[in-house]
Amino acid sequence: MTDLFKQLEPATQGTREATSALLDDARWNDDGLIPAIAQQHESGEVLMMAWMNRAALEETLATGRVCYWSRSRGKPWRKGESSGQVQRLVAVHLDCDGDTLLLSVDQQGPACHTGRRSCFYIALGQEAAEIDSAPLMDPAELYGQR
Amino acid sequence: MTDLFKQLEPATQGTREATSALLDDARWNDDGLIPAIAQQHESGEVLMMAWMNRAALEETLATGRVCYWSRSRGKPWRKGESSGQVQRLVAVHLDCDGDTLLLSVDQQGPACHTGRRSCFYIALGQEAAEIDSAPLMDPAELYGQR
Repeated sequence: MTDLFKQLEPATQGTREATSALLDDARWNDDGLIPAIAQQHESGEVLMMAWMNRAALEETLATGRVCYWSRSRGKPWRKGESSGQVQRLVAVHLDCDGDTLLLSVDQQGPACHTGRRSCFYIALGQEAAEIDSAPLMDPAELYGQR
Repeated sequence: MTDLFKQLEPATQGTREATSALLDDARWNDDGLIPAIAQQHESGEVLMMAWMNRAALEETLATGRVCYWSRSRGKPWRKGESSGQVQRLVAVHLDCDGDTLLLSVDQQGPACHTGRRSCFYIALGQEAAEIDSAPLMDPAELYGQR
């Protein structure tokens, strides 16, 4: 953990710091990425987790529309650009040691590419797992609409 | 994404699968780890993100007490073993492509090593960031109590 995050540990509510200084010291991984958790702002439902590089985070802060970094496509991924299911930004928090982001968002329709609201639909038990939500819409329809 | 996760994409609610088969196909990273998001079960508050290897996840499912893998210490980390602030497991979900876990937990006291309830206390704006929660207790007290 860097000195800046260490310094902020005992900070009282309302303490301010430059975002750029925090992003300089954030713990981007070897690919320059940080995991970003997206949570629906009023319900608290965790919708998905994806990755951001610094440019994607800065764009998200500037535009209010969530932009990730697609590891599979190797390029910025403006959520909803192919599905139409845009994520608007409500707030972003960085965690105590600067290695994870929590995005509070307003997600239109399904967040998941399977057509489900959330990506977390496989409930694990010790022996058996169970699918606990059904698609809201057919993915073919989701990716057909532009 | 593996065939098993692909196969489950259109699955209806209630579809069952062996947990071991899902864990065989889950996308553990090069260090054998998957990120695990911990969410307080009744409030929806996202408390922290840490990492699990397969053994930590299997122990968590078997015991109902959350066990992570500590990357800094290179060993299992039974949450609360030094702070006393145990996390009980309520439910675990794996996501659509098998590379992230969402833990629904019952967290005693602060989840964060700084003494705060949640690790996500640095609210980022475009120019300035602000600390938006104060420690519930002094970390010295947290790690003094056993």
